[in-house]
Amino acid sequence: MDNSGTVLMPGGVRDLLPAEARRKRELENNLLKLIRSWGYQEVVTPTFEYYDVLATALDDMLHNQLYRFIDENGQITVLRPDMTTPIARLVSARLRDQEFPLRFCYTANIFRRENHAGRQREFYQAGVELIGAAGPDADAEVISLAAESMKLAGLNDFTITVGHVDVLTGILKGAGYSAAEQEQAKIALSKKDLVTWEQLVENSQLTGKYKKLLASLPYLHGGIEILQEIDELVKDEAAQQGLKSLRHVWKILSYYGFRDQVCIDLTLLRGLGYYTGLVFECYVQEVGYPICGGGRYDELLAKFGFPCPATGFALTIDRVLDALDKQSPSYDDQIPDYFITGSDMGEVVKKARELRQDGFIVEVDLTERPRREAIAYASRKGIPHILVMDHDEKVE
Amino acid sequence: MDNSGTVLMPGGVRDLLPAEARRKRELENNLLKLIRSWGYQEVVTPTFEYYDVLATALDDMLHNQLYRFIDENGQITVLRPDMTTPIARLVSARLRDQEFPLRFCYTANIFRRENHAGRQREFYQAGVELIGAAGPDADAEVISLAAESMKLAGLNDFTITVGHVDVLTGILKGAGYSAAEQEQAKIALSKKDLVTWEQLVENSQLTGKYKKLLASLPYLHGGIEILQEIDELVKDEAAQQGLKSLRHVWKILSYYGFRDQVCIDLTLLRGLGYYTGLVFECYVQEVGYPICGGGRYDELLAKFGFPCPATGFALTIDRVLDALDKQSPSYDDQIPDYFITGSDMGEVVKKARELRQDGFIVEVDLTERPRREAIAYASRKGIPHILVMDHDEKVE
Repeated sequence: MDNSGTVLMPGGVRDLLPAEARRKRELENNLLKLIRSWGYQEVVTPTFEYYDVLATALDDMLHNQLYRFIDENGQITVLRPDMTTPIARLVSARLRDQEFPLRFCYTANIFRRENHAGRQREFYQAGVELIGAAGPDADAEVISLAAESMKLAGLNDFTITVGHVDVLTGILKGAGYSAAEQEQAKIALSKKDLVTWEQLVENSQLTGKYKKLLASLPYLHGGIEILQEIDELVKDEAAQQGLKSLRHVWKILSYYGFRDQVCIDLTLLRGLGYYTGLVFECYVQEVGYPICGGGRYDELLAKFGFPCPATGFALTIDRVLDALDKQSPSYDDQIPDYFITGSDMGEVVKKARELRQDGFIVEVDLTERPRREAIAYASRKGIPHILVMDHDEKVE
Repeated sequence: MDNSGTVLMPGGVRDLLPAEARRKRELENNLLKLIRSWGYQEVVTPTFEYYDVLATALDDMLHNQLYRFIDENGQITVLRPDMTTPIARLVSARLRDQEFPLRFCYTANIFRRENHAGRQREFYQAGVELIGAAGPDADAEVISLAAESMKLAGLNDFTITVGHVDVLTGILKGAGYSAAEQEQAKIALSKKDLVTWEQLVENSQLTGKYKKLLASLPYLHGGIEILQEIDELVKDEAAQQGLKSLRHVWKILSYYGFRDQVCIDLTLLRGLGYYTGLVFECYVQEVGYPICGGGRYDELLAKFGFPCPATGFALTIDRVLDALDKQSPSYDDQIPDYFITGSDMGEVVKKARELRQDGFIVEVDLTERPRREAIAYASRKGIPHILVMDHDEKVE
């Protein structure tokens, strides 16, 4: 997408001209159609909410990226930095008495302060939240739907990286790390800080092949087979359940035909503090950031006073558009099917009306230029049908 | 729409639950389809822009309703209070070299501070901007499209009130008023302040039937016939052109079949300072505010350094939804077509996939409740088809 005209505009936001806007609209409509066919229903939440309400549920990273302002009643208000938190707020506040699970979806813009020049500050996302379903079938549904969304978007050559917070924690516990060391290790792994990681491996209580396996963790990507090795490293119940979930999800993704796209990476953490179980991201070669990401967040709704398991994903529309743009930049403006000009406005209107009712896009000539110029204009624009409506009687 | 749960939310903003969100989405998609068939193309602009850039073009009313915040670079930034101004900024900054007229449309949320409790502060609008066309055919196109939009939205019983800034100015000039008196008269007329108006009529230079006609202005609503009387009151060229435009627009609206809906009211001013010619509003009985409004704003683009005639309208989606809600409140949630449960997840997934590809909405059971309860749930929800997929082999 284009970023010119930035003198007049804040960095990190952009205009979409017709070809880009059309691609975005079609993408969103197609995604919503797919997502709805899985039983998800759209909800809409306000662009701004009370700081006090949202902030309690946000992790530090999002907290530091909030756009705040004081509203006319003196309240601190924030632009939403994601849709998961507002939907959790909505469910906790108004929908506790519904039958669960609830399946909600959205397309929405979200807002994050960015100190890096060139980073987006207003994003467009489409996503789902599956609330009130605890088992691995729910994780599998959400990841499968994310994968189907990538495919539908035209990004066939994608990878789904899947990890599990409990499995990683189990490995770190198994290595004998204190809570502080576990935290340090997670930060090192998520930053790919291999120097710190190697030191931590040295300090672990593991020896021999187990120590070797621990050291290999940042490089351990692959199919279901890598879980066999890990099995021996984890002892606690939560981590064993996590491995079971990963295997289950891998199987379901295979049923959907995505076996070759799945890549298990146990160091995946997704930064956001609210993830509690299975996490995942979708990548394509064309774009350096994940296009889509999500996972289980079983503790978020409790922060709004309503403990309830949940999982979901968000797909960043801007990044899909960037990736598609690199695949095929030539997305065109919509060319009208008909151009109608003429002195008899009654006939022009009548004809335009008929054609529009038949599903055609009709541009009516509104200028007072000579006939020849009007026709030349329509030809330049590539409009295939040009109609001239002249009669003896005239409007006026 | 529902406003409960307001303790957790700022006043004037709202959540849309699935039935409401669906109605909004369908309305927006239908409106965009109609508007596109007239050759308008969608554009998207950022939710926030620089205060310095937008404020120069806003009239006092919108200026006082801005939500401002300081961004991370210390710049004053505002949430857009309308879409006309950002689109004018976009055209002036980036599209001067295009062939005109440009036809743009949008659906967007806009933000206005409100001191009155209960007034919306985040609105959803759909609208068009027709930029670079000066004649009455352009005004007629925009009003006709607004009328078609009202019809499409299901609000058949609507009135289009049409006025003209130049005609009103011409009448006030013809009455011999100074510039200050003209301003005073416009304020009185737009507020329906009949006491001030009567005083002004007394002070006018008119006598006899002309004075009577002037006095009747606030009550003068009706079809094209009321313009005949006014003809005698206005002398200046701009006002005569304005009357000609009104007659032309009335004729075109008649061609579209909206003759009975048009109501000419020369006191219509639309508050916004940027209107320069023909202005209009659409009303329905169910809602106290105009559903839709617009007009010509030939001086706005010049404020961005690019003098160019333009006209457009915005339709407030929230108000359409309110009106529809009063007509038929029972807009339902989307009920899935199929519910699939079973121990064989491979078969469940396969069947769900096939049905979704055939266009059905399929909900897959994700809970571990007993079969009987799952079926009871689907029945309660009103899902017409319930499938059970049990085989000897099981997942996990």
